[in-house]
Amino acid sequence: MNYKMVGRFLSQILFIEALFMVPALCISLYCADAMAVKGFLAAIGVAVGAAVVMHLLCKGAPSAFYAKEGFVCVAISWIAMSLVGCLPFYISREIPGFIDGFFEIVSGFTTTGASIVPAVEELSKGILYWRSFSHWVGGMGVLVFLLAIAPSGEQGKGFTMHLLRAESPGPDVGKLVPKMRKTAAILYIIYIVLTVLDILFLLFGGMDLFEAVCHAFGTAGTGGFGVKNDSYASYSPYLQNVTTVFMLLFGVNFSCYYLLLLKQFRSVFKDEELRTYLLIVLGSILLIAWNTRELYGTVEETLRHSAFQVASIVTTTGYATTDFDLWPSFSKTILLCLMVVGASAGSTGGGLKVGRFMLLLKGLRRNIRRMLSPRRVELVRNNGTVVDERVLDNTNAYLAAYVLIVFGVFAIISLDGFSTGTNFSAVLACFNNIGPGLEAVGPTCNFSQYSGLSKLILSWAMLAGRLEIFPILVLFSRDTWKGR
Amino acid sequence: MNYKMVGRFLSQILFIEALFMVPALCISLYCADAMAVKGFLAAIGVAVGAAVVMHLLCKGAPSAFYAKEGFVCVAISWIAMSLVGCLPFYISREIPGFIDGFFEIVSGFTTTGASIVPAVEELSKGILYWRSFSHWVGGMGVLVFLLAIAPSGEQGKGFTMHLLRAESPGPDVGKLVPKMRKTAAILYIIYIVLTVLDILFLLFGGMDLFEAVCHAFGTAGTGGFGVKNDSYASYSPYLQNVTTVFMLLFGVNFSCYYLLLLKQFRSVFKDEELRTYLLIVLGSILLIAWNTRELYGTVEETLRHSAFQVASIVTTTGYATTDFDLWPSFSKTILLCLMVVGASAGSTGGGLKVGRFMLLLKGLRRNIRRMLSPRRVELVRNNGTVVDERVLDNTNAYLAAYVLIVFGVFAIISLDGFSTGTNFSAVLACFNNIGPGLEAVGPTCNFSQYSGLSKLILSWAMLAGRLEIFPILVLFSRDTWKGR
Repeated sequence: MNYKMVGRFLSQILFIEALFMVPALCISLYCADAMAVKGFLAAIGVAVGAAVVMHLLCKGAPSAFYAKEGFVCVAISWIAMSLVGCLPFYISREIPGFIDGFFEIVSGFTTTGASIVPAVEELSKGILYWRSFSHWVGGMGVLVFLLAIAPSGEQGKGFTMHLLRAESPGPDVGKLVPKMRKTAAILYIIYIVLTVLDILFLLFGGMDLFEAVCHAFGTAGTGGFGVKNDSYASYSPYLQNVTTVFMLLFGVNFSCYYLLLLKQFRSVFKDEELRTYLLIVLGSILLIAWNTRELYGTVEETLRHSAFQVASIVTTTGYATTDFDLWPSFSKTILLCLMVVGASAGSTGGGLKVGRFMLLLKGLRRNIRRMLSPRRVELVRNNGTVVDERVLDNTNAYLAAYVLIVFGVFAIISLDGFSTGTNFSAVLACFNNIGPGLEAVGPTCNFSQYSGLSKLILSWAMLAGRLEIFPILVLFSRDTWKGR
Repeated sequence: MNYKMVGRFLSQILFIEALFMVPALCISLYCADAMAVKGFLAAIGVAVGAAVVMHLLCKGAPSAFYAKEGFVCVAISWIAMSLVGCLPFYISREIPGFIDGFFEIVSGFTTTGASIVPAVEELSKGILYWRSFSHWVGGMGVLVFLLAIAPSGEQGKGFTMHLLRAESPGPDVGKLVPKMRKTAAILYIIYIVLTVLDILFLLFGGMDLFEAVCHAFGTAGTGGFGVKNDSYASYSPYLQNVTTVFMLLFGVNFSCYYLLLLKQFRSVFKDEELRTYLLIVLGSILLIAWNTRELYGTVEETLRHSAFQVASIVTTTGYATTDFDLWPSFSKTILLCLMVVGASAGSTGGGLKVGRFMLLLKGLRRNIRRMLSPRRVELVRNNGTVVDERVLDNTNAYLAAYVLIVFGVFAIISLDGFSTGTNFSAVLACFNNIGPGLEAVGPTCNFSQYSGLSKLILSWAMLAGRLEIFPILVLFSRDTWKGR
């Protein structure tokens, strides 16, 4: 393990985090929230201090950087970012418990949106901004950001590749362009443009600037933290529909947008994952609209609520326009299934990912065929090209780890004594980075009633879900820590 | 597809089923239950009639018999057996609905033990015997039985191997002896001896002969149908403990018993699956006893109930000595986890199987290591020998199919509007062949309130669970039905 390299890297991440807190500090200064200002100043101080110390300690790091350093860097920087990022909540006393604050910021960075705050409208503006901004930072990934802005040539080629691979969602990392660094920059540009568009559409519908920015951050990162106690319920149908569309847009593989920019409409139109994603969304909207047809006054209202909730859950955002915990069981079960499937690979959404889900299905079909004709050679294809067996293997291992973690976390948090539906949906909502679950963690409730242990375990599950399990599991492997 | 061969095979199976109904008919005659006698006579008539017709139609079948014929034979015979086996329930009017009767007998053959009968004590003795005997038949498998008794040399070698492989539980079929046919016979002899031992121990504890036989059938097949409304709650601690031990014994891989007969104590003692199975059982008993310590009067009582329920769920039997739906959430979640893990491969129990679970874990560890050192060659071993990559591949495909089926069935049955906990546990209880679930399908309740559609889907899930998914999935593959 190249500790010095990891440390040097960590110092850069913490320095960026300090910079990211500056806008929130300015808002708190502008609103004259003395406690919040104190919180942000302290957090920035800690971040810069730690960054400087680590930079000095890790001078002269060897440049050896392999897959395991990539995993460890990603896992440790996310944990460190969360430990520093929760300080404003804690020091400002707006979230008095440290574990609660940690849960809240992990939920922010991982774009989960599960909250322990009973009434968000009581939080100060600077704190609200930091909560929402954490979604935006976590959505595309702070390491990807670092890669996008870092001067090229500073680190080796393995460095960027291993990092991007460890932080990016999906079964396989698609390079948009041969240079990983340029890929990272293109991703961030698309991300920023879409976010700005969302803000403009929201402003056009009469939302005030602060709320529009916060909501756009939550939508872009597919997070779900809002600024109102009732999430999106009290906004106009126009604003709800705009958010439905943008949530769905952020759940699309970003490489599709890049292809659109290159005018390769044909490849986008034929993309198997995109088609499946749209099919799942459309099918779920219609099924839920049919199932909830007697709950709302008009067809428009039924479809609007159905579409908003489906978009919110499948992209793992977590906003709500209605209390879907009051929906019939069938609709709730569809939402639970959508939680597991999740958004597209290469998007800011979480879950198993549509692409991985398709690989599992194709692998299954291949195995059935092979059982029927054992000597037949059968390859798995995606968009016409053969999928590497290693990718299939990793996808299978991913599912195994996924199932194990779901049941493990489910068992531990059930120590708190809530119902099976509450606990099971809480695990799915956190691990898939959605936010609200059902019953006692439904859209009108929050996670504050869970014990400290459960909050820590759920935070761990959120991190594991956002970083796609392996970087977090690697921390527990003996092979990671022994020398070469 | 060699239709004639499948038909000839089916005719043998139906003939055996007719024979299997004779003891139940005799009991009904002895008890002078006119309606039950009518039911059994009609069912035997239908079975024999169909067997004769099919035998005549399928004369001169070509001997080509491949993997796909094996899968299709197994799937179709189980469905045909169930269609005929439910006739006594239906014609005797003891279970008035046909779908209800079908659900009940599928639950019997698949050794699930989920019932739609509100008060079993009102059923006649012949019907009760048939219900319990269906567990015994389904536990080891009627095709294995056919192989064990068939005159050798009649069919080709592929025939026995493909059938045994399709019907036997576990990731890989262990041959005890080079000849598959002899393996089948040995398995049945062990099965009969253990069943008789169980009956003797129950008789020694003062249970009457009829009840002892029925309970031993339910225990041996890890089924769970009983003869009392309160399952095992009103029996003496001795009888409960005897059943705990025998349930656990029937959840062990039967090849361990064969090795014991060969005095290979060392291999049994070192068997990884057996060790893991015992560890899971012991750990769960202690955790649940600790969690339920305030519910019962004495340590003995707490441990007894904990051990009984753990044994009943992990072996997927489904008897109960206490209403575990009233246990704290943590204990209930442990039971849900045990439902998924299930018993050992090569036992009569269901679920994912401990052996498959271990392969998934080992495959996951291998993948993590390979991610850390991509060029390292890493093999998965079980009991010291290298596991074939095909077996690992199939195990992964199995998990994918398992997860898909759980969520698919979960979605469909939630149309009936029950709670998330009820529906989720109903799926796990049926698909893993356990029987009782939680909440509205808990140990004191039954499945009668589900709609006809849900009962059919749950019956399908029980069959898919018992036959380990692939034989049932193969029926839906186009490749199965097209010619070579």
